[in-house]
Amino acid sequence: MTEPVSFEKLKAFLESSPFHRFLGLELVAAEPAEQRIVIRMPYRPEIGRGAVPGDIHGGPIASLIDTAGDFALIMMLNFGVPTINFRTDYLRPVANTSLTATARVVRLGKSIGTVDVEVHDDGGRLVAVGRGTYATREG
Amino acid sequence: MTEPVSFEKLKAFLESSPFHRFLGLELVAAEPAEQRIVIRMPYRPEIGRGAVPGDIHGGPIASLIDTAGDFALIMMLNFGVPTINFRTDYLRPVANTSLTATARVVRLGKSIGTVDVEVHDDGGRLVAVGRGTYATREG
Amino acid sequence: MTEPVSFEKLKAFLESSPFHRFLGLELVAAEPAEQRIVIRMPYRPEIGRGAVPGDIHGGPIASLIDTAGDFALIMMLNFGVPTINFRTDYLRPVANTSLTATARVVRLGKSIGTVDVEVHDDGGRLVAVGRGTYATREG
Amino acid sequence: MTEPVSFEKLKAFLESSPFHRFLGLELVAAEPAEQRIVIRMPYRPEIGRGAVPGDIHGGPIASLIDTAGDFALIMMLNFGVPTINFRTDYLRPVANTSLTATARVVRLGKSIGTVDVEVHDDGGRLVAVGRGTYATREG
Repeated sequence: MTEPVSFEKLKAFLESSPFHRFLGLELVAAEPAEQRIVIRMPYRPEIGRGAVPGDIHGGPIASLIDTAGDFALIMMLNFGVPTINFRTDYLRPVANTSLTATARVVRLGKSIGTVDVEVHDDGGRLVAVGRGTYATREG
Repeated sequence: MTEPVSFEKLKAFLESSPFHRFLGLELVAAEPAEQRIVIRMPYRPEIGRGAVPGDIHGGPIASLIDTAGDFALIMMLNFGVPTINFRTDYLRPVANTSLTATARVVRLGKSIGTVDVEVHDDGGRLVAVGRGTYATREG
Repeated sequence: MTEPVSFEKLKAFLESSPFHRFLGLELVAAEPAEQRIVIRMPYRPEIGRGAVPGDIHGGPIASLIDTAGDFALIMMLNFGVPTINFRTDYLRPVANTSLTATARVVRLGKSIGTVDVEVHDDGGRLVAVGRGTYATREG
Repeated sequence: MTEPVSFEKLKAFLESSPFHRFLGLELVAAEPAEQRIVIRMPYRPEIGRGAVPGDIHGGPIASLIDTAGDFALIMMLNFGVPTINFRTDYLRPVANTSLTATARVVRLGKSIGTVDVEVHDDGGRLVAVGRGTYATREG
C-alpha cells in the first residue's frame, strides 16, 4: 500500500511547475482518506478571454481541471500520473472570480485512475465539471 | 448565409485575448472552404510542466484545442461561439517544440457545432487530439 | 415553469421505445425535487459480451447511461430531449447482474442540459459512470 | 510484432457475442495496413427509439461505435481489449437505415489505444462520431 503524499510535499510539487506558477495554483486541501483534493486558481488579467473585461478563458479552467484530477491521484500514489484523456463541460460564463476545483477519485485501478472534478466560483456556483482518466502504473 | 471572417480580422480577434497573447497563439491558416483553421503555439518556458525541463504541460495543449475548435466556428459564423464541452486525448509527451493545431468542422448545425482538432509537434508527430461541441446560435 | 412529468407518464414513455423494451428498462424512481431519476436494466443473455458466459457488453451499459440522462431531463421538461454527446467510463467488468443507473441533472440551461449518471451492480459496486449533454430547447 | 487477425477469424469473433448477434453486426472490411475496420449494423425495428416509427435509438449507435473501436484494436493485437472510456457525438437523427461504422486507430500504444469512429447512414451522410480509449496491455 502506498503512503499518501503529505500536504507540504504535494504543495511543493504543485508549485514546482512553471505553468502552475503562471496560473497561481494553490493547494487548499489534500484529504487522502476521502481521496479528495482542493486546488484554487486566483483571478488574474492574463487568463482573460478578452471579449468582456474580467471574463475568464476556458483554457485555464480546463487546465485547472486536468491538474486537480492529476494531483488527486499523485496524492494517493506518490508518483507522476500522466493524463490519458479528459472531458471539460463549461456550465456558466465566469468573470472576475477565483475558481476552486475539488477533485475526487472515482476509481483507483492498477493501470487506470478516473477522477471527477467540480469547479466553483467565489459565489459557490458550480461553473464547470471535468472527468479525467490517468495512467496509474508507475514507470 | 454568413460571410466567413477574413484572415486579418480573425487574427486580430485571436490576438485580442490576454490568454491567447500569453500562449503566443498565431493564426497560420484560415480556410473557410474546407471549414478548417490552423493555429500555432510556440514553445515558451512558462508553459512547462516542470518535471523535466522543456516538457509542456497538458493545460496549454487543451487550451490550444479548445481555442482552435472555437475559432474554426467563429471563422464560419462571424460571432462568438461558447464552448459547451470538449475532450482532450494526449497521445505522446511533448517537449521543447512548438505545437500546431488543425481544427476541422465536423458538423455546423443551427444550434450545435462539432469540431475535431489534431495537434502536431515540430517533427510532424500527432501528439494530441481534441473534439469539442460549441453553441452556434447567436445571441 | 414546466410541471415535472408524473412517474406513471414517464414510465409509459420509457416503455414505449422498442429498444428500451429489448433492454427491459424499468423506471425505479423519479424525483423531480432532486432532479434525479433511477432506471434499472435486468440481466438477460442477449446483452452478453460473449467472451465469458454472463459478461455484459459495454453497449447496453452505454445505452442505459444515455437513456437515464435523457429521462432525467424529460422528467423536468416534459418534452423529448435529443442527446448531443456523452462520455462513458467503464470502471469494472460486470457479469450476471442487473444494473441500476442513477441520473442527476448537473445543469438545466435554456438550451443545454448536463447530466451525470452512475451505474451500480447488484452488489452496490459502482461499475460505470457517464456524463451527457442534451439539447433542452423545445421544438 | 503481433500478426494481425484474419478477416475470417475476426468475423467469427464478432459474431460470437450475443449482443452483436442481436444488433446484427457484420464485418465489412478489415484493413490492418491502414489500421482500419468497417462494421455494418442493419436496421431492425427492435433498435427503434419509438417516438417516430423507423427512428433509431442512440444506444445501438453508441454500441456500434464502442464495438468498432474495440475490433480495430483486436484486429491489430489479436487479443481482447477492454474499453476504458469513449465519447459519442450524435450529429443527425437517423431513421430507417443501416449504419456503417469506420474505425481507424489513432494511436496504438503499449498500454493505451485510441480509436476514431465515423458512422454513416445508407445515404452516405455522417450521422455520428465516436472516440474511444482502450487498454492494450495483454492479460
